[in-house]
Amino acid sequence: MTLHPDRLFPSDPAMRELARSLYASVADAPIVSPHGHTEPRWWALDESFADPATLFVTPDHYVTRMLVSQGVPFEALGIGAAKEEDPREIWRTFAAHFHLFRGTPSRLWIEHSLETVFGITERLSAATADAIYDRVAEALPRDELRPRAIAERFRIEVVATTDGALDDLSYHRQVRESGWPVRIVPTYRPDAVVDPQATGFAENVEELGRVAGISTASWQGYLDAHRARRAFFRDHGATATDHGHATPQTADLPPDEAAALYEKVRTGKLDNGAAELFRAQMLTEMARMSAEDGMVMQLHSGSHRNHSAHVLQTYGRDNGFDIPLPVSFTDALRPLLNAVGHDPDLRLILFALDEATYTRELAPLAGAWPSILLGPPWWFHDSFEGIMRYRRQVTETAGFYNSAGFNDDTRALTSIPARHDLARRADASFLAELVTTHRLDEDEAHDLAWLMAGDLARKAYRF
Amino acid sequence: MTLHPDRLFPSDPAMRELARSLYASVADAPIVSPHGHTEPRWWALDESFADPATLFVTPDHYVTRMLVSQGVPFEALGIGAAKEEDPREIWRTFAAHFHLFRGTPSRLWIEHSLETVFGITERLSAATADAIYDRVAEALPRDELRPRAIAERFRIEVVATTDGALDDLSYHRQVRESGWPVRIVPTYRPDAVVDPQATGFAENVEELGRVAGISTASWQGYLDAHRARRAFFRDHGATATDHGHATPQTADLPPDEAAALYEKVRTGKLDNGAAELFRAQMLTEMARMSAEDGMVMQLHSGSHRNHSAHVLQTYGRDNGFDIPLPVSFTDALRPLLNAVGHDPDLRLILFALDEATYTRELAPLAGAWPSILLGPPWWFHDSFEGIMRYRRQVTETAGFYNSAGFNDDTRALTSIPARHDLARRADASFLAELVTTHRLDEDEAHDLAWLMAGDLARKAYRF
Amino acid sequence: MTLHPDRLFPSDPAMRELARSLYASVADAPIVSPHGHTEPRWWALDESFADPATLFVTPDHYVTRMLVSQGVPFEALGIGAAKEEDPREIWRTFAAHFHLFRGTPSRLWIEHSLETVFGITERLSAATADAIYDRVAEALPRDELRPRAIAERFRIEVVATTDGALDDLSYHRQVRESGWPVRIVPTYRPDAVVDPQATGFAENVEELGRVAGISTASWQGYLDAHRARRAFFRDHGATATDHGHATPQTADLPPDEAAALYEKVRTGKLDNGAAELFRAQMLTEMARMSAEDGMVMQLHSGSHRNHSAHVLQTYGRDNGFDIPLPVSFTDALRPLLNAVGHDPDLRLILFALDEATYTRELAPLAGAWPSILLGPPWWFHDSFEGIMRYRRQVTETAGFYNSAGFNDDTRALTSIPARHDLARRADASFLAELVTTHRLDEDEAHDLAWLMAGDLARKAYRF
Repeated sequence: MTLHPDRLFPSDPAMRELARSLYASVADAPIVSPHGHTEPRWWALDESFADPATLFVTPDHYVTRMLVSQGVPFEALGIGAAKEEDPREIWRTFAAHFHLFRGTPSRLWIEHSLETVFGITERLSAATADAIYDRVAEALPRDELRPRAIAERFRIEVVATTDGALDDLSYHRQVRESGWPVRIVPTYRPDAVVDPQATGFAENVEELGRVAGISTASWQGYLDAHRARRAFFRDHGATATDHGHATPQTADLPPDEAAALYEKVRTGKLDNGAAELFRAQMLTEMARMSAEDGMVMQLHSGSHRNHSAHVLQTYGRDNGFDIPLPVSFTDALRPLLNAVGHDPDLRLILFALDEATYTRELAPLAGAWPSILLGPPWWFHDSFEGIMRYRRQVTETAGFYNSAGFNDDTRALTSIPARHDLARRADASFLAELVTTHRLDEDEAHDLAWLMAGDLARKAYRF
Repeated sequence: MTLHPDRLFPSDPAMRELARSLYASVADAPIVSPHGHTEPRWWALDESFADPATLFVTPDHYVTRMLVSQGVPFEALGIGAAKEEDPREIWRTFAAHFHLFRGTPSRLWIEHSLETVFGITERLSAATADAIYDRVAEALPRDELRPRAIAERFRIEVVATTDGALDDLSYHRQVRESGWPVRIVPTYRPDAVVDPQATGFAENVEELGRVAGISTASWQGYLDAHRARRAFFRDHGATATDHGHATPQTADLPPDEAAALYEKVRTGKLDNGAAELFRAQMLTEMARMSAEDGMVMQLHSGSHRNHSAHVLQTYGRDNGFDIPLPVSFTDALRPLLNAVGHDPDLRLILFALDEATYTRELAPLAGAWPSILLGPPWWFHDSFEGIMRYRRQVTETAGFYNSAGFNDDTRALTSIPARHDLARRADASFLAELVTTHRLDEDEAHDLAWLMAGDLARKAYRF
Repeated sequence: MTLHPDRLFPSDPAMRELARSLYASVADAPIVSPHGHTEPRWWALDESFADPATLFVTPDHYVTRMLVSQGVPFEALGIGAAKEEDPREIWRTFAAHFHLFRGTPSRLWIEHSLETVFGITERLSAATADAIYDRVAEALPRDELRPRAIAERFRIEVVATTDGALDDLSYHRQVRESGWPVRIVPTYRPDAVVDPQATGFAENVEELGRVAGISTASWQGYLDAHRARRAFFRDHGATATDHGHATPQTADLPPDEAAALYEKVRTGKLDNGAAELFRAQMLTEMARMSAEDGMVMQLHSGSHRNHSAHVLQTYGRDNGFDIPLPVSFTDALRPLLNAVGHDPDLRLILFALDEATYTRELAPLAGAWPSILLGPPWWFHDSFEGIMRYRRQVTETAGFYNSAGFNDDTRALTSIPARHDLARRADASFLAELVTTHRLDEDEAHDLAWLMAGDLARKAYRF
């Protein structure tokens, strides 16, 4: 394996030549990462990564789920009570099964990282496992492989993390106070204090009151506590909120009904219906606050989290067992949109796992409502084919300018440049296709390549 | 910008050469336009269009919704109480935002019209706005730019308009009496007298009785009034009916239950359930009448009309805020189909906005039921990618012959040739792909190109 | 018409050359057919086929539905009380309408059979109907055109048939006792004794008890009777079961509730809800038995069978009037999966007609749960475009190794090699696309082509 300079460009020579030229003009553009899951601690403490398995295998649920799907036990990947403790053994298991990733984006991301970060160009396999392990392990303690050095090497300009409403943001403060020029900004993710069915909801809501200095015993107090925490996040550089809901259902109850509903969920007298209605109401409240304070609102919906009860119980959350559900935004978003959807200060970015919504709902919504932008292909769809389907399906109705640009959404630091590179190549291929079929002029394609590589994200997230 | 002669043909040289040759044989074929929304008045009075903004911007909801989605107020586009009155100012706003249409069919349609109708080959922008405005404005009063001249220049053979059941069809009569050889035929669209939740339904039903000369106080009278109006439409050249329903639900109640339901909706004692059931029942009644009188039945379903309450209230209907919904035809159509679906005189043409139904339902339905044909890609999907998806998804199961050919479905006169040209190019590209991959012989592709350019529509609509 | 050696390979020269080479290495690989509907009698008695119409037209519902959809009566195709009895007349009708199959897989399968089995290279049409009929009819009585000779000529290694739970498998025994080396194995398909709404359910369940020698009067007896029949099938070579359910709903009731539900359905006291719940419960019971006895479980769901009441009544089942429905696996499979989904001996192969589930649910499920594999594109989707959509949509999330390989699923003997050839060509095209865009190395593509041509199916079905 070596990274081919023409990877992901169309085979047709005319298209390939143009894709090359479009990509070349953005290949080294600064990276804007407005949504993701890197650890604030990495950026604050700037410590070396422990070992190759910790960097590439154990915490990457794209990797672990695929291995588990073919019979590898979680334990062999360093997860669970009886877990394998030797990172080299974990790495060997990973390497011996590396063929499972053929045709997947994980393969492309991992090889990109191994080559561009570690200079490794051999293909990973049982035979090469130890040699590659040694080279990565040897390199990891070096200064140029600490988080900040990697960010600088790949020209990362800004990274948004995703942080609970109760987080004290001390790592963010520490980064800022260090004077390091890369912007590491938090994102307000209040799910644990918004979802009445979240573990410890009642305590979380009390704690929200404490950290905000506003009693959450009343509906008004609860909303004001959110306002205070949003302001606190903004003071630490946040420009956005993020909401992970199973469905995109919204509601817009009269204030007294909303207050009564809050009283019910706060005191634990809830059933499924009340919980869903409260989450729905809170999306509208968050949208209202976004229209007030200008924080960009992101909605990630449509995943059945923790599909396997056994995996949740034994190994915990975020282990690859989240499975998407059919979703419809059209009716679900109406209450929110009819409440604040025409407010010029609201910006709502929608993410979807049900691709059937791309042409049916998302492109028509973004191509009409001034407050809506479309997030990039999310999760399973952040892949070459996923990006091409997205572009081909949303562009004709929503255009390019109703897009929020690219998000890497990653938990794996070295995959940030890998994912942006993949997206820039896919976008170059898509634009080349439009130009060679005379649907776009070449100067426009160059202009758009630049927008898609960064400016759309900067504008969408108000950076 | 200039219209490239190879636009929309594949980049691969072998496919391109064949696509060119297939397209060449149909490029100048007469245009059959069996479904659309041109104004009967245009054809009857043959007056010049007022100004460039009225021709290209204000009434085109594809254009206005995109501008609104990026923050342009409706007023700046000539819509609303405080609207901009100067067409040149509207045009300037449009031109300054023309980059928003990159990658959209609107861009291709507009440039096709500007070049083929007005000879303009510069790209529209803030810089060229005034010059292009002047050239279009100057040309508009000329005789060759009146509606009939445009129709003749583009070899339009027949145009179906869409007309309410109460319409007196006087413009259609006027066209016919003028001896002009282009067929302008009405289409019976009874939604306002069929949907109990339509504004003024009770009055509409009474008026239906008056214009038909048959009392609509009874279920039987109501059905007979429909029969009379359908006959009146046929006398004016109509060959088809059209039905815009939010869902494709049908029902087949026993006559006495249907009569009781009619009594309920006629007297305003309706709830959501009764209204939906009545619409469902009426689709089956219309299908029965189609089997009697041979009028081709079109069903357009799956749009949540007027998604924004604010836009509806302030600016009215058809302003780009109609958003599709998930739809399923399989169970919904069964009552109608089991009532009359095997009648050799019934022809039912289905249109869809939920592309997930293409392979799942529509192609299997059309590939089995003798009464069903598939309408072309509708609305948001009447685009290059939309057409390619449709062909690739329905052809293998339904073949080419269960298709109703192309519809332009437009409100914009000069986009009729633009849309047919786009569809013919897309079809040529699709056929070229089948031939170069040896799934079809070249003589068959030429035969099919001709069918798709007109004969399928002529046959489907019984012209 | 002649079969072009490059058919279904991409037009782009670089991709085509590679696709050719990938295909060449598997073109003559043995055929593994783990799911289909050939008649056991054919293999046991090895009689000649009667005539061309019986071989190619009357029993092939892909063919008959398409002709019916364009107005040909079932009777003209040899179906129904007043059916045409002369096979030559049936053939003439078929030939005169052969253009209807342009762009469909039926066209490709039929031409493959005519050329490779009968040496016929003329295109079928009204003009060539008689000559081709004569050549096929003349050839049919020859020894080399009997079922076993055809299987040997095309290197068929194993064929699974689909057999009711009550079947005595005498034909399978006869084949085995004949010493013929091709494996003809049954598949346990218990729908008629599992679906309380199946015709004759109560009698079927009693008969199940009789043939199993275990009374089915109790829930435990009923389950044990299934166990006994599964063992009987295994003794005859079966490695798999198959379940055709309208929905993939599963349930996991406590044993006493399940027993009470069984008592209800056994004694005919059932409503729609109880019937659906029983089918749902039985999927979980079957999965439990699969985990016990190692039989691979196949689930085919999502079809509304017998959509036309008239066709069912007049012409019977399996006449092309089965129409897919929207389906979701995510919530529906949870009870089964949480009961046995982590059992290392369970293997569940999922088939879908709703392609919206490919990226939304199926690839994520197969890419996580160790027990799940994905069946190949089913029914309407077993076509070139269908296969390409499937590969492009599932591979990035599920990889290649969570696939069960190819199934031909056919009722038409000569279409077995035709369908495997089509699939191998499509897979070669897909792999060539990955290699030329540098997402996969060439040696890996060769390795995968071989896996996809047989080994994945051998492994999935435990052959």
